Amino acid sequence: MTQMIKARAGKITEEMEMVALQEGVTPEFVRDGVAAGRIVIPKNKNRNRSKICGIGGGLDIKINGLMGTSSDRDDMEMEVRKIQAMEEEGASAFMDLSMGDHINEMRKLSLTMSNIAVGCVPVYQASVEAVEKRGLMVNMTSDDLFSVIEQQCEEGMDFMAVHSALNMDLLKILKKTGRTADIVSRGGSLMTGWMFHNDKENPLYAEFDRLLKILKATDTVLSIGDAIRPGANADSLDQSHLRGLMVAGELTKRALEAGVQVMVEGPGHVPLNHIPSAMLLQKRLCYDVPYYILGFLATDVAPGYDNITGAIGGAFAGMHGADFLCYLTPAEHLGLPTEEDVRIGVRTTKIAAQAANVLKHGTAWDRDLAMAKARVARNDEEQIRLAINQANLTAAFAKSPSHGCAVCRDTRCPADVAAEFFGLA
Amino acid sequence: MTQMIKARAGKITEEMEMVALQEGVTPEFVRDGVAAGRIVIPKNKNRNRSKICGIGGGLDIKINGLMGTSSDRDDMEMEVRKIQAMEEEGASAFMDLSMGDHINEMRKLSLTMSNIAVGCVPVYQASVEAVEKRGLMVNMTSDDLFSVIEQQCEEGMDFMAVHSALNMDLLKILKKTGRTADIVSRGGSLMTGWMFHNDKENPLYAEFDRLLKILKATDTVLSIGDAIRPGANADSLDQSHLRGLMVAGELTKRALEAGVQVMVEGPGHVPLNHIPSAMLLQKRLCYDVPYYILGFLATDVAPGYDNITGAIGGAFAGMHGADFLCYLTPAEHLGLPTEEDVRIGVRTTKIAAQAANVLKHGTAWDRDLAMAKARVARNDEEQIRLAINQANLTAAFAKSPSHGCAVCRDTRCPADVAAEFFGLA
Repeated sequence: MTQMIKARAGKITEEMEMVALQEGVTPEFVRDGVAAGRIVIPKNKNRNRSKICGIGGGLDIKINGLMGTSSDRDDMEMEVRKIQAMEEEGASAFMDLSMGDHINEMRKLSLTMSNIAVGCVPVYQASVEAVEKRGLMVNMTSDDLFSVIEQQCEEGMDFMAVHSALNMDLLKILKKTGRTADIVSRGGSLMTGWMFHNDKENPLYAEFDRLLKILKATDTVLSIGDAIRPGANADSLDQSHLRGLMVAGELTKRALEAGVQVMVEGPGHVPLNHIPSAMLLQKRLCYDVPYYILGFLATDVAPGYDNITGAIGGAFAGMHGADFLCYLTPAEHLGLPTEEDVRIGVRTTKIAAQAANVLKHGTAWDRDLAMAKARVARNDEEQIRLAINQANLTAAFAKSPSHGCAVCRDTRCPADVAAEFFGLA
Repeated sequence: MTQMIKARAGKITEEMEMVALQEGVTPEFVRDGVAAGRIVIPKNKNRNRSKICGIGGGLDIKINGLMGTSSDRDDMEMEVRKIQAMEEEGASAFMDLSMGDHINEMRKLSLTMSNIAVGCVPVYQASVEAVEKRGLMVNMTSDDLFSVIEQQCEEGMDFMAVHSALNMDLLKILKKTGRTADIVSRGGSLMTGWMFHNDKENPLYAEFDRLLKILKATDTVLSIGDAIRPGANADSLDQSHLRGLMVAGELTKRALEAGVQVMVEGPGHVPLNHIPSAMLLQKRLCYDVPYYILGFLATDVAPGYDNITGAIGGAFAGMHGADFLCYLTPAEHLGLPTEEDVRIGVRTTKIAAQAANVLKHGTAWDRDLAMAKARVARNDEEQIRLAINQANLTAAFAKSPSHGCAVCRDTRCPADVAAEFFGLA
């Protein structure tokens, strides 16, 4: 019984109650959202943890971080520190993208060292194992792939990016119509290579019912990977992007029918003026299930600052209905992120989420308002309590312990003098 | 003869030609924009410099930085380094906000050490001098204020924030209707104090023709200061905000009639869902003259990251027609910015401007597209050439000199393997 099936039976689970409490909504609202598929609660049956979050319509936007070993930097201790950093900074979930030498061990650490939702991308592990066992990634069998998925679900994975929304029809269209950056999804690229080499349909698409059955057994949330997402602003909303959404929609419907919790992943590179349409079409074509985006990156030319580029697009996407923002770090397009990059990534993405969440006039709005009042009252403690980064503000205030204006804390700010006459402050 | 008066006479000045060349538009387009007031070209008659920029409708969004001494940190050498940093990073203009002990000397340095447009806020200097000469800021006379304005214009100031859009009617309305953070504009607060203490109308409003005459003589662009701007999301688009815009509109019309180049300043704190209306009303009420904004800050709770908060709102405002973005640094709401803060501020604001500029499908779009192509081609040199921060990318690439995928530059990225089979890359 998944959360969705329980909700459809009218049951309010403990997890739904926890989500309702956090969000300031009724348990019935959460239940009805989960039943309809508008809300997902990533919580694997086999994994115990106390921090539960809901993602989707009517709830505050949540943030996902990323970590994982790779062949270029295979340091599990560093990755554990990243997990702790993400959780400390306020991520609601993270994905373990490990492709290093000890994927299973790293996953166990990810699941035991954290108290938030954990996701992964099974095709990563499957492709690494195919190279080990069969010499080449393209020698991977469909059974290899599903056996990895099953293992990961059984070990407690709360959600999983599966690149099912990729099929031969899509690739043929992409070949015919072309784009600037054909495929930038790593999982999508792997499966594309596999499909062309083997001249076979994508097993994650062809055997979608098999996938659903596995996910359902542990109530792992399906996150439909955006294999064919635009990787350049110039490719946004092109035919391939839209057709990819349509395939995701077709599969979303099947997941909903099967009682499997599902969300859909999105780009990537989307210019600001495309965002309203991109969001509308996604929600329309994918039955209003939660939308999980990477970015959107608002421009392509800011490597080193893609946390900011992503925050610009992410905030705007959030205003238009994005539910779950995957963070970007300053290392995006540069190399592998450090622990500090990870912290900056979560913080920046939190700002984007907050900018969209305030528009709902719930707790995020109250927090903004309380900050403004604390500034007017020149209440340093309250400002620190409300800040996105409390440590940073504490340090800054210690350096300039003035009770001057909250803008630049100048001790002899003439605005202070004037305020006396105004009699309003 | 101001640029505007020349444009109205059908003349295409050297400055208009330079703007046209930079922007890839015709000189006639620039001339007609200047004649109508949609475009300003800040260029004081008494100051020679080679870098000219146009600001306004149909042109790329420009960026303004800030610097200046204060009573808390009166270090002119540091401020000169900030000027150099801003210019290096690509600001089109900056404002000297000095309120330290050597305002005149600092201004001379600002004007001679830079090759971009310089602006200032005359009420700052006037209030410091009033304290020196007359004991209290509120003892400042109207003549004191206009004499500072005249001096600054004659010395070469290219544009000037003048807090004219503040009058007794506005303050009465603010007192009646209330808001969270009454007045957060420093200039607005100074003038409010002066008005209440002296029980007199704001001379910058009451003697507006006197102001126009001074500005016209040197073709200094009037930037109508937003004295009553919202300083909290909760105050955005309130009655005072809108009435402030209306007073700015009334004065804008008079400036246009007088042939004085004019732009209007704006907030500040504006939530994302207010931006389309805020921009539309500003342009509507202020005769489509350029809009110069500080922010907009999309949330109040991110002190230490207001460069990012401002980039989110700034990009969105840019999409809706903002023409000139004043940068925010990470020091906003914390203290006085360092040279490094200044660099980060310009870079972050450049990203916001680029995110909006790409939507025009001009040079900014071409740059985004070229970057995407360079990534596909794995052309490191070209990626560096196109990046917002070249030095940063050069350093990052030197650390991971891989020719792997442009996302994380993993040397053994399996996506590379797959790409061979795809045959598209």
